[in-house]
Amino acid sequence: MRQSHLFTKTRREAPKNEEAKNAQLLIRGGFINKEMAGVYSFLPLGLKVIKNIKKIVAEEMEKLGSQEIIMSTLQNKETWEKTDRWDDGKVDIWFKSAFKNGSEVGFGWSHEEPIVEMMKSHVSSYHDLPVTVHQFQNKLRNEVRAKSGIMRCREFVMKDMYCFALTEEENLTFYNRVIEAYLNVFRRVGLGDITFVTSASGGVFTDAFSHEFQTVCATGEDNTYIHKDGKLALNEEIFNDKTLKKLGAKKSDFEIKKTTEVGNIFNFGTQKSEQLGLYVSDNNGKKKPVFLSSYGIGVTRLMGTIVEVLSDDKGIIWPRGVSPFEIHLLSLTDGSKKFADDIYESLVSRGIEVLYDDRDLRAGEKFTDSDLIGIPTRIIVGEKTIKSGMLEIKDRLTDKIKELTLKDLINELKN
Amino acid sequence: MRQSHLFTKTRREAPKNEEAKNAQLLIRGGFINKEMAGVYSFLPLGLKVIKNIKKIVAEEMEKLGSQEIIMSTLQNKETWEKTDRWDDGKVDIWFKSAFKNGSEVGFGWSHEEPIVEMMKSHVSSYHDLPVTVHQFQNKLRNEVRAKSGIMRCREFVMKDMYCFALTEEENLTFYNRVIEAYLNVFRRVGLGDITFVTSASGGVFTDAFSHEFQTVCATGEDNTYIHKDGKLALNEEIFNDKTLKKLGAKKSDFEIKKTTEVGNIFNFGTQKSEQLGLYVSDNNGKKKPVFLSSYGIGVTRLMGTIVEVLSDDKGIIWPRGVSPFEIHLLSLTDGSKKFADDIYESLVSRGIEVLYDDRDLRAGEKFTDSDLIGIPTRIIVGEKTIKSGMLEIKDRLTDKIKELTLKDLINELKN
Repeated sequence: MRQSHLFTKTRREAPKNEEAKNAQLLIRGGFINKEMAGVYSFLPLGLKVIKNIKKIVAEEMEKLGSQEIIMSTLQNKETWEKTDRWDDGKVDIWFKSAFKNGSEVGFGWSHEEPIVEMMKSHVSSYHDLPVTVHQFQNKLRNEVRAKSGIMRCREFVMKDMYCFALTEEENLTFYNRVIEAYLNVFRRVGLGDITFVTSASGGVFTDAFSHEFQTVCATGEDNTYIHKDGKLALNEEIFNDKTLKKLGAKKSDFEIKKTTEVGNIFNFGTQKSEQLGLYVSDNNGKKKPVFLSSYGIGVTRLMGTIVEVLSDDKGIIWPRGVSPFEIHLLSLTDGSKKFADDIYESLVSRGIEVLYDDRDLRAGEKFTDSDLIGIPTRIIVGEKTIKSGMLEIKDRLTDKIKELTLKDLINELKN
Repeated sequence: MRQSHLFTKTRREAPKNEEAKNAQLLIRGGFINKEMAGVYSFLPLGLKVIKNIKKIVAEEMEKLGSQEIIMSTLQNKETWEKTDRWDDGKVDIWFKSAFKNGSEVGFGWSHEEPIVEMMKSHVSSYHDLPVTVHQFQNKLRNEVRAKSGIMRCREFVMKDMYCFALTEEENLTFYNRVIEAYLNVFRRVGLGDITFVTSASGGVFTDAFSHEFQTVCATGEDNTYIHKDGKLALNEEIFNDKTLKKLGAKKSDFEIKKTTEVGNIFNFGTQKSEQLGLYVSDNNGKKKPVFLSSYGIGVTRLMGTIVEVLSDDKGIIWPRGVSPFEIHLLSLTDGSKKFADDIYESLVSRGIEVLYDDRDLRAGEKFTDSDLIGIPTRIIVGEKTIKSGMLEIKDRLTDKIKELTLKDLINELKN
């Protein structure tokens, strides 16, 4: 895409009412627009990042055999009353409104109940299980505070997945597969080295520990004890002598870090199915309630976390898999435009995603914008390039510069 | 996809409270789930259709140079007050709720105002115009009645596009390009022969006539007079002697048909920009309000229209471009399963989208389900196939059967 065509403009300053680094950088780079506290729109660059993250998440969920659906935002009062979660005293983040006839309607902050209700039309026998479905859904939550940019919003995109199983064992088998899939997701979005499956308290599953997915992040709201082997991580509340003894681990081998939760798991056992009436007949024709577990990844939250941890004073440093473009091509002078045009066409024709800064601006302004936007690889085309035929290629993360011919660059990008 | 893996089940009967043919067939086929009147969730087959339609629409909008964004559902009261459209007396389809601090919030039934407001951060000079943006947005509208299935919902997916232009002429130039793009969309989703750009009254643009996109549909809510040449179509309200004289057309050459609106256009001139404060400096440094036009296609409405007009007593007949799968492969007997498995793998490995009915059901049940689901091409594999090596290929629309080898079929699908 030619940057002269991109309608968004970068800004030197973030809005005064924006406290979170992720939102400050994303607003300054033209990725998002703040509609109100905790509510953001996604502009072309931001939407591209969202789509890249979604694609990675979708691929990993599909490998698990999950089927994609999309539930409605408008939700039935009656469904939520069955589990006693309509009451604002029980769930304090509802947005509610009313139809013209006066009857109340809720806006989806979660889809657990409606999905179980829907599944009643499709699941009736043990032959139908296990079933897994997922969606990318716009959740609406009436949060009291919303000061973490896109990491905790009143409106946000979540991938939520639901596994319906005949037995607790089937449920647990799927759970273990999800752990691997989630780690693949976090690796592919560039957070692999700093994201941990942490053992936490509470009986999410029948094991002694349940699990959370935590990413090391200076502004994170949680504390996690990470073992020096990098494999074991413990939630603060279970980091005690009893746990350490059980695991045969030494206290001194752990380091405490601030972390933020990037994935979650809920196990409902058969409770919701019993409340809502989702039963199947087993192989003896006996009626059994279905086991349910749910698995969330906040897509916009993940984007915010990436910006929070992968950025510097100058701007964002996108990991390759989620960057809005693979290459940021900068033409520095009027004289280099023709040459840069040719490179742009050549890369685009090979299916390489390029943001091409063809604007009539000084080189310094282009560099500043490029650092802010944070595309991992920058190609600089100036008078020098025309003479030598060598492209100057700069890595946003390491600041290292190398020179390559166009042909060599294309070969490198293909590998 | 193996049908044994697809969690949705077909139904013989539609729910009693469902009046619209489109929703009846879509519910029976397992494409959608009714959450409440005018609110539907989209199950795997339905979501695939939505994605196919979105892809076609997106491609045509991108050809126009439009940039994709996604605005928020939660909307600011203050923004809508500036155009006097917050008041329920002025706009009677708002869903509204309140934040914890008591301040009101609206749910997006339209995004005209918020998009103009957002654009103020990015557009300031005539150099920045024209700009076009579009989104695929979940609209929420508090309709009094909702009895047309997914053709008029309280929650629905809309592609809305906005053109910001410096002059009325620039605005009109874009408008004419959109007409062509919209006709491409309707052609590609299989409604080309029965969709018309109709001249209508009212000054959408400065021309004597404005335009609508109408599809011939027995259950449509509009009346359109269609000329026997198939090119000229007139809205009921302007079908009179004055119009006919102006066009040099004969009354007797027109036939009246029931139609349904599948695309719309609004021209706001500079009104909204003046109300909301979107100005640019022109080439003399003078401040000018921006011209705005908006262009809608209801994606779910279009899906509903397709089902309404392309279906028979047995079920849906999807056009090729929007069908959830290209091929419905049916294995009729236990003995034919191995053979069908091989065909399935062979087609899928070539990137052909196949729904493979590998379920343990009687042939009759499979045929009934296949007719209902409506994938355009059906491959039937039975004992006969194994002997002859010839696949029986049935066209859902024409009922015509032909026999081809797998190799010939693949060649045909590639062309």
